[in-house]
Order: sequence, then structure tokens, then C-alpha cells
Amino acid sequence: MRGRRIADFPPRRGVARAMAAVETVEGKAETTALVDKSVNTIRFLAIDAVEKANSGHPGLPMGCAPMGHILYDEVMRYNPKNPFWFNRDRFVLSAGHGCMLQYALLHLAGYDSVQQVINSPIDSQEEDLKISDSGEAELPVILRTLKQLELKSQQGIANAVGLALAEKHLAARFNKPDNEIVDHYTYAILGDGCQMEGISNEACSLAGHWGLGKLIAFYDDNHISIDGDTEIAFTEDVNARFEALGWHTIWVKNGNNGYDEIRAAIKEAKAVTDKPTLIKVTTTIGYGSPNKANSYAVHGSALGAKEVDATRQNLAWPHEPFHVPADVKSHWSRHVPEGASLESEWNAKFAEYEKKYPEEAAELKGIISGELPAGWEKALPTYTPESPADATRNLSQQCLNALAKVLPGLLGGSADLASSNMTLLKMFGDFQKNTPEERNVRFGVREHGMGAICNGIALHCPGLIPYCATFFVFTDYMRAAMRISALSEAGVIYVMTHDSIGLGEDGPTHQPIEHLASFRAMPNILMLRPGDGNETAGAYKVAVLNRKRPSVLALSRQKLPQLPGTSVEGVEKGGYIVSDSDGKPEVILIGTGSELEIAFKAGDELRKEGKKVRVVSLISWELFDEQSAEYKESVLPSDVSARVSVEAGSTFGWEKIVGSKGKAIGIDRFGASAPAGKIYKEFGITVENVVVSAKSLLA
Amino acid sequence: MRGRRIADFPPRRGVARAMAAVETVEGKAETTALVDKSVNTIRFLAIDAVEKANSGHPGLPMGCAPMGHILYDEVMRYNPKNPFWFNRDRFVLSAGHGCMLQYALLHLAGYDSVQQVINSPIDSQEEDLKISDSGEAELPVILRTLKQLELKSQQGIANAVGLALAEKHLAARFNKPDNEIVDHYTYAILGDGCQMEGISNEACSLAGHWGLGKLIAFYDDNHISIDGDTEIAFTEDVNARFEALGWHTIWVKNGNNGYDEIRAAIKEAKAVTDKPTLIKVTTTIGYGSPNKANSYAVHGSALGAKEVDATRQNLAWPHEPFHVPADVKSHWSRHVPEGASLESEWNAKFAEYEKKYPEEAAELKGIISGELPAGWEKALPTYTPESPADATRNLSQQCLNALAKVLPGLLGGSADLASSNMTLLKMFGDFQKNTPEERNVRFGVREHGMGAICNGIALHCPGLIPYCATFFVFTDYMRAAMRISALSEAGVIYVMTHDSIGLGEDGPTHQPIEHLASFRAMPNILMLRPGDGNETAGAYKVAVLNRKRPSVLALSRQKLPQLPGTSVEGVEKGGYIVSDSDGKPEVILIGTGSELEIAFKAGDELRKEGKKVRVVSLISWELFDEQSAEYKESVLPSDVSARVSVEAGSTFGWEKIVGSKGKAIGIDRFGASAPAGKIYKEFGITVENVVVSAKSLLA
Repeated sequence: MRGRRIADFPPRRGVARAMAAVETVEGKAETTALVDKSVNTIRFLAIDAVEKANSGHPGLPMGCAPMGHILYDEVMRYNPKNPFWFNRDRFVLSAGHGCMLQYALLHLAGYDSVQQVINSPIDSQEEDLKISDSGEAELPVILRTLKQLELKSQQGIANAVGLALAEKHLAARFNKPDNEIVDHYTYAILGDGCQMEGISNEACSLAGHWGLGKLIAFYDDNHISIDGDTEIAFTEDVNARFEALGWHTIWVKNGNNGYDEIRAAIKEAKAVTDKPTLIKVTTTIGYGSPNKANSYAVHGSALGAKEVDATRQNLAWPHEPFHVPADVKSHWSRHVPEGASLESEWNAKFAEYEKKYPEEAAELKGIISGELPAGWEKALPTYTPESPADATRNLSQQCLNALAKVLPGLLGGSADLASSNMTLLKMFGDFQKNTPEERNVRFGVREHGMGAICNGIALHCPGLIPYCATFFVFTDYMRAAMRISALSEAGVIYVMTHDSIGLGEDGPTHQPIEHLASFRAMPNILMLRPGDGNETAGAYKVAVLNRKRPSVLALSRQKLPQLPGTSVEGVEKGGYIVSDSDGKPEVILIGTGSELEIAFKAGDELRKEGKKVRVVSLISWELFDEQSAEYKESVLPSDVSARVSVEAGSTFGWEKIVGSKGKAIGIDRFGASAPAGKIYKEFGITVENVVVSAKSLLA
Repeated sequence: MRGRRIADFPPRRGVARAMAAVETVEGKAETTALVDKSVNTIRFLAIDAVEKANSGHPGLPMGCAPMGHILYDEVMRYNPKNPFWFNRDRFVLSAGHGCMLQYALLHLAGYDSVQQVINSPIDSQEEDLKISDSGEAELPVILRTLKQLELKSQQGIANAVGLALAEKHLAARFNKPDNEIVDHYTYAILGDGCQMEGISNEACSLAGHWGLGKLIAFYDDNHISIDGDTEIAFTEDVNARFEALGWHTIWVKNGNNGYDEIRAAIKEAKAVTDKPTLIKVTTTIGYGSPNKANSYAVHGSALGAKEVDATRQNLAWPHEPFHVPADVKSHWSRHVPEGASLESEWNAKFAEYEKKYPEEAAELKGIISGELPAGWEKALPTYTPESPADATRNLSQQCLNALAKVLPGLLGGSADLASSNMTLLKMFGDFQKNTPEERNVRFGVREHGMGAICNGIALHCPGLIPYCATFFVFTDYMRAAMRISALSEAGVIYVMTHDSIGLGEDGPTHQPIEHLASFRAMPNILMLRPGDGNETAGAYKVAVLNRKRPSVLALSRQKLPQLPGTSVEGVEKGGYIVSDSDGKPEVILIGTGSELEIAFKAGDELRKEGKKVRVVSLISWELFDEQSAEYKESVLPSDVSARVSVEAGSTFGWEKIVGSKGKAIGIDRFGASAPAGKIYKEFGITVENVVVSAKSLLA
């Protein structure tokens, strides 16, 4: 199906603007002079904004302005007045420090102030661009955001792979021979830094493997990174590497003003439909600056008034800061009406689609809107104490497979541990180059790329719910991607199994110790550690509902009993009473995950000895923190200071819960290799130790 | 100089065993039958051990036994009775799950029980191999370690790059035309998983850039990973990728019994002295197992008694478990005397070297032994309150440059942020392909590879002290390598600047929040956050002294005053009193790093109002935890419950210090973009807020 893309190209572009773009690609329309002017407008918007803020990165925008102009003015399909239009082309500035390029482009294209487009953008009115730094509160949003978005987005290319995966998947599922309702490209600009980071190799190896033909990445080959010439640390042959990864590659030797070369490269890239394309574009960083171009000095600092003047002279740009010449403004002004036309044309197409394929249309609508099907949560399995004991990783698989039937946007996979993480969706096959309609994604041993690809999928449209899996300890390999999930409000579900020393023989390299604490300390991410079937179901309910906050599910390798007193409702509160004696408790035992069983049994033991004991499950500290003071006091009354926590992980942070008079049982060293039961005993994570500790507090 | 390596080869190999090896490589010595037998011995040692433990990974050892045999029996130079002999060839099993291969080889070579060789090994007597699981305490060390070492060592190839870097550096510094005292190879075996991980691409790109000609890596191309055939996720052309990275590549098509092909490949690899070599060796995972070979079933599970029998039949191996045939034993027995000869030959060479080049010899000796030069710590700068205010990143640079003069083993660099991290050693140039004697390492934007390479450098010999640097927030990119530092007791110094919202305009993607907490929770790593010059010097003293524990130094971008009361001695205790009122304090203010100034000033303010105030610096929680109960009580008396902490990071964990009646001032959300002063005010990290909080506790 992808093979038809190019042949269909002209007829499917009905509106004037798109036609103009096509003509331009063929070199007919704009005069080079106007393009030059537009490109210089972009350069100076970037120069002026960074100068005004006295902070930022002018070098990349100055070098990449030509490819930026061609992409936004001639190639990409978007609607400035609806940045969230589903079928827009996606653009990711992986070299995120150069965000003034994108702001300038969005500004020219007519985007309203502060619109969040995938993973970066935002634009602004000229007024905003002009206003300068006067403190956080007053700082114009454009400048504030400019800074926020200077992300270490060496991950951006991996996000772009996720976006392109989403497009290929949805197109394969929903397109019909007479109506290709899903049909857009993903573009990205990478810098030298992106190319050096391992995550880009991981993601690009997968992009090649999957044959993501509608992914077109520009590599801004400017030979300069922060420490100077890339000769000092980066001398590999990038295009040859990408060819080895299964990409089509092109080299544009003059990126500074070789407009036709850039246009031809894009045309060639679109003609290759079974491979992603890397277009290496050799540019001069800080192009136009007579004294700073081609040096690291222009990478990450304002040019300074004197050099700005010299650059104005050099590029023959007599205008005031932030000036957009009338002819440039007029030229770009067509994008607002054309964008509206593109979207309404697509809406009409969707209406036809809906008439002819009502079921598919309903499903696609859900994916586009993010509205969950009514009653979806009823699909989650429920358990009674009589249900068989099982590992939460297996219970997780039951949940995933139950949800796959009711959530059309659920898809995901594991980093080569599907059979250990228990993440296969049994009703679906593998998402592969020739079966992109399937929903089991095989990421290979590439945790970091996996996380970032899932961020791209989650941000493609609100109804896609990606999950990804590995051993909990290997979150260390993907933590940077998980933090971007949290920061970008991407509701990825992280299915992390083998969550403690309970995994046994694989030993300390595989045994997480500090990982629960490390995510509890991270903002805007939910750390959930269910203890049995009902809690696992509850964790999935929470994870699915939290579309703007990623969830990390820590799951056991080992079998756990189904406990009386656990519930989905309890999970939703983060912490709740699982069992209780009558009246005010003398001691509170608090457990999570696989140690909830230990707390529960210790409670029974202590009650046999006549103690009044409450057992609390603290499955998610973040959710519990969000409850009312009354509720929290009702679970953990402040006048009960005899508290014992038990968790097979670092005790770091538990003082908050058990207080200075309580006791936290855990592990503050690396683990050991032996069968799980033996290690638990060795480290004192036992019913006996909880009982003894509780009694010592009551003595 | 490297160019002479091969030409010199035969004459420098004086001892019998080494000559035999050379002859064997040339196909003269061993009969193929004996090699077959030795290879099958290795296979069955692995099969039997995994069977006995009922856990482990037999597949790789069965497939890689031929290359393992050739390496350890014919090629490598080592001394089984001194695994730490400085000039030994290094071997890293990057595909660490296959560690039974290495145990079997070390066993045959005559290593004594439980010897730690770089990053993996350990060996054992046959007795050890036979004893099985009977609990952590009694479990024979060989099996316990076997498990511990099944590390996610997709990092192993990056460690190997670090080892090879160390060799190239030391050889360039110390070798003389008449005495090449440093002269060994680094070998590694990678699996498909290693190749998929981004970290390997990062490290191998650097290895190519640096021209590490004595690094020879075998890629066990067995087409199987845990989820099945690599076809599902890994279809790139690995050798072509490595060529793009600047490696020499070879393909051995028959790794199962193509001994001569393997030998020829090694010979070819050694002949290429200006590039590292990747030898792709196509093998069959689980070779010899009639029903499980070439399937994931043999990757990570015991074969099972029935299949072990079938394999014995198939490979015509009638022996008892763990049997080493007499002729195989006899053949391998020469390695003990030959290893002793190799070492004593080298010792003689060193004695000559010492006579002729006493200064260089003394320096090299220090590097080999790890003994620090007497009085080295006197080189650390000292500061008074009158010293100019400065950012701790700059103070760090003063320390690094002072230490570079006295510590011959100090070397390191930054991930393309040298001018921001302030890590350049001014007296040295760049370590590069043609200037390997220099000590500034340029890692490029490759944090993960950088950390793992530094682990390799640290583990090369005790006196090498590698440091590496990036922004503190980007520890997320290298956390897995840092955990291996902690677990492998590699005393890497992590110089992490821009350690809080204090970095200002770059915004939340660059502002660490949860990072201090995340390292405080990690075992065996020192998290140090100095507040001024003396504390920075103290942090370096601690970091240099802790050779078996990595240190993370969190350093400010912004200027900080030199405070009265700070000291190196205080730092060594982790927490200490910086200023105090007479008599028992009413309130204790606790700060770290850039917020120590705030606590200090708040103390002065409160004293003006007549309060009795103690100000404590808690620069390292780990070091403070290690102090005596008396000392801790003397700093934080338990009956003073009015405590206020201030730190520009997550408050997670601070309850332990301030108690349930105290107050922790910090930031529990993502940061913001604005000048540092404004963000501090916005988040309430201010003297005023500390004063108000303290007073509220005293009210």
C-alpha cells in the first residue's frame, strides 16, 4: 500500500497551497530571491530572539533556515489554526537546542501563540518575540518556552520513529483502497549530537527494520558541536552507517543555499517508500555571521550586538529586529487558508469514510480523540482470594490481553523479553515491515529507543496507548526517555517485571534496589507496585486513565497469593487499608507489591497474639499524596507511631511513611544470587522480621 | 609507534608457550582432534554447570567454545596464578550471560578459585563446579558468582574500549624504543544483544575514531535472542555499520568448527594496527544439542537431563559430568608454567626499564599498584572566606588541574561539554589517535558510552583514576553505567555540573530535580554536593581516596561565596557543623551545595533575632551514615526536632534528616526557565523562607 504513495501524490493534493508546494519542489514557482528573503527572515528572527533573551542557540537556525523554509513553506501539510489536526505532517526538531528555527517557522506560517505541537514547537505573534526577559511571571511565553524546549532531544529522532510507526500502523489498519484516511509524513532534523547518542542508532536500526518509508530525517552536518569541530570526537561515516541500518541516504552538499538540491532530495526520499531516508545536509553553523560562522561560538550564545550588526551587513539585511518583510509575510500568509482547506478536505474525506466504514470510523475516531470506549474498565479481570496464586507479571498479561480487546489504541511490546515480561497480546501478530497493522512491537534489546519510540506513539494522537516492557532494573537504560514521558505528559505504560531480589538467581545486576525510590522522586510519573490480581487490574485502570502522566508498573517474577481486602478502588487512592483489627490500631504494617503478602501475614500473626494491627497497601505514593488530608489521616492516623514498612528495595524515603519512631524493612545494599526464598530470608524480608519489629515498637 | 606492533611480534615472544601459540595460529601445532576434544570439554563444562544449578545460559558457551578455546589456549597471554598481572591480555565477555564459557576456560587454564579478572571472570576448581545450590551461604562461590555476573553487560564492549584506551595511553606514555613495557591486547565477545544496545555504537564509534588497533572484538552472530530469531528485530548489516565506524571487519562463516578461519581472522586483525577489528563469527547457539540448537530454548535455560544425554550422544561425549579428559588436561596444563614465565620475563623487562628510566618507572609503578604519591592531597587548593566567590564547577576545575600535577593516573573528559563542565586539564592536550599520551578525553555526546569506558579505564589497573563529566540531569543517559561502577567497585569520578534549577534559562529538561535522591538511594556510590571551594576540594579528596566506590560530584553553574566554617575534614565526615550558636541549638538548618549559603545566611538572620541556631552541611549522606552514632548525635542531636533543610531538588528522603516535626524545603515538580535568582525565588528556595520555616517550628 505504501508503494502507491508517490503515484497518488499530485491528485490527492487538491488545494491551492499544496499544488503550489508541488510546483515549487519542481522548481517552478517562487523566485529564488523571495526564498532568500524568507530564509534570511528566519535567520534574523532566530538571531533577534536569542539576542533579546541573551540566551539561546542561534547557530543551527542560521544554518538550517533553507531546509526549514522548504519544509514549512513548500512541503509540509499542516493547519496553523489547528496544530492538533490529526492528519498533519509531523515535524520533530531532534536537535532541540535550535528551537528558534521552529518558532520562526511557526510564526511565519501563522500559528497562534503557544500551541503545543509534537514534542517541541510553540509559536508566537511578533509582539511576543519582541518582549524580553523580565522575570518568570512576565516573561513572554514564547521565550519561556523557547528555553524549556531546548531539550536534550537527541531523543527526538527516536520520537520521530515512534510517530512514523504510529502513522504506518494506523494507515495499515484503517486505510481502504478507496480512502486513504491516514496519510502523512514524519520529518525530523538531527544534529551531530543526535548522531553520536546511542539512542538514535537504536531507534534508526528499528526504523530501517520496519521500513518506515514515510520517515524523512535531515541530518544537519555542520561539523560543530559544543566542544568545537566534530573532528575531535566524531569521524565516522554517518551515511554509510545509515545504509547499514537499512535506510536510503542522500547527501546535499550545499545546505546553505542549495534550495534545488534540498527539494530534489525530498522528492527522491518520497519516491523511496520501503525505507526511511536520511538526507545529510552539509551546512555552515551560524551561516551569515562573518566572524562566528563555522565555530562553536555561535552554537549556544547570543551573537552580541556587534556581530549581529556585522551579520546584518553581510546578509544585506537592513531591517529592524523581528521585522518580517511585507512580501515574505504575504507569501507565507497563504498557509492559514490553505491549512484550513487541507483540514476541511480531510474532514470531508473522513465523512465519506464514516459513511462507508462506520465501524472502522468509530474506532479511528476514538483513537484520534482519545475518548475511551464506554465501560472499557469492565474488561479488567477480577480476582477473589480463591483465585490461584500467580506472579503479577502474569496477572499483568491477563490485564493487557483483556484491555487489547476493548482499547483500540493499545499497542506495545518488550525489549527482547516478551516471554519474561509476559507482554504478548495473544489476539495480535507482530508489527513488522509487512504486517504493520499488528500490535505486538518487537523492540529488540534497545530499552532507551523503546521508551522514546513509545513517547512518539503516545504523542501521535491521544487515543494511542503504548506500553513497553523490560526488567525493572533496566529502567536505568531508558531513564532519560522516561523522564521525557513525564515532562512531555506522554501517558506511556512501563511494564517493568522482575521487580526485586525476588527474581532470584540472576543476581545483583538484575535485582533492582534503588529503582522504586528513584521513580518516587521523579515528578509527574506514577510508580505503581501491585501486590496481587486486583491490584494489578487497578494499576492498569490508573495507567490507562492517566493519559498525561506515564505509569511505571513494578511486577513480580514470583508467584503471589490473591489477598482478601485488595481492590481496584483502593489502588486508585494509592494507599488503603487491606486488613484491620477492630478499633484503633496499635501498630500499622505497610507493604507494597510482593511484600504486601508479608505484611498481611504478619498482621495475622500479631493478631493471634492479641495485637490490634492494621495492614496498609501503599501501591502508589503519588496517588496517596494526592488524597485529602482526611483520607490520609484515616489510613495512617498521625497518633499511631508504631509503623513497620516492608518492601524488597531501598528504605530510602520510607521515613516519610513510618516516621522517626517506626521501622522500615528493606535492602540498602546490592542483592545476591540464590533462589528467591533464600534471598528474602537472608535479607530479613520475612513475616518473622516484621512481627519482631512490630513487637519491638510496641514494647 | 603502534605501527610497529606486528613487525615486532615474534621476537618479543620469548617463552615456549607463546611460541606454541604463534605456531598454532599458523596451523602447525595441535591436532584438530585434540582441539575438538578441548572445545567439547568447554561445551560440557558449561552444560553440566548450568544443569547442576538448574539455571544459567548454556547456548552461547556451546556456540562460542571454538573461539574461546583458540583465544585462551593459543592466543592470549596471561598468568593463571596472578590474574592481576599488569601486562596480561584483557578479555571481556560482553555477552555476559554466557559466563560459563569464561569459567570453563579459566578452569582449564589453571586459575585458582574465585579470582576476579576484569569485569567478569572468576574460575574454580572442578570440585567447585560440581557442588550445587544449597543456599546463599553454602552455595559455592563459582555458582554464586556465575549468577552475579550474568550482567546486562551489553556494556562489556564499552568497558573493553576503556581497557584498550588505557593500554594505548599507557603504552604511548611509557614505552621506549628499546623497551615496550606496556604491550597487551583487549579481546571481547559480543552477542546480538550487545549489538542492538546504543551504548555499543557509542563506544565503538569512539574506538574507531581513536584507532584502537589492539582491540579485537568477536561478534557471536548466532541469530538468536531471547524473543527468538533476530529477524524479528535486528536486520541491519552489522559489519557494514562497523566499517562506517572506522573498524576493520572480518566475517568467519563457520564459527562452529572453522578453527583455521578463526585463527586467520585473529592474525589478520593483529596485522591491522590502526583500527580496531570486529570479527563476525557465525555460530550455532547451543551447538551440539540435537533438539535445541539454533533456538531460544537453549539461550537461557538448562538443557534438561534428556537433552543433555542427547547432546552427549550427538557429540560423542561419553564422559561423566564435569570430566576433563586427561589429554585435554595435559594440553592445557602448560599455561600455568608459561604464564609464570610470561610474567617473570616481563618483570625482568621492567627491571631493565627501571634501571634505565627510573622516573618513568616510578610513575608507572604507581599506576600499576594504585599507590598514591605521598602528600598528593596537599596539592588540593584551599580557600578562605576572602577568596572570591565562584561556581563549584570552576572550583572543580581548579582541583582537577591541581590533581593532574600530582596524580599520574588521572585522566578523563566530558561528553561534549568540557567548556561548560570545566573539566579540561590545561597542562595536557587531547587523547587522540595520534596523541594517545595526552589525558583530555573527548567523548562526544555519548554519556552512556563515556561512563562505561571510564569503568574499563578504572578496572584496567588500580592507579588509573578516570573522571567524566556532563550536566547532572544527563546522568539519566548513563545511569546503567554508573550502577555498574557501583557494583563493580570502579572508582570513577563523575563530575556533574549544572546541578539544579540554578542553571537557569535552559529550563526543566536541563534542571535536575530527582537526581540527588536517585543516587542517594543507590548502593555503593558516593553522592557529594559541595557548597564552596573547601568543600569541593574535600569532595575530590574523598573521590580520589575511594578507589572501590564511584563518586558523583554535583556542582553548580552559578557563583557561590566561600563560607567560613567549611572544611575538607568536615566533608570527609559527610555532615558537619558549619556555624553554631553557643549552647544547645533551638533549631538546626541543614543545607547542601549551593543552598548551604542560604542555610548559612538564614542562620545569621535568626541569630540576629536571638535564636540559637546550628547550620549543618550534609554534603554526603552516605559518608555521614558511616560515622559513629556519637558523632551523628553530636551534629544532629535527637532532642532538637526543629530542623529545616534546604536543597534545590526533590525533598524525597529528607524526612530521615528533618524528622516528622521538621520541614524540608525543596522542589517536587519540574523546574522552570528563567534566570537562576528568579527561579529560586519562585520556588521558595530563599533565606526568607528558611527563616520563616524555622520560626514556625519554634513558635
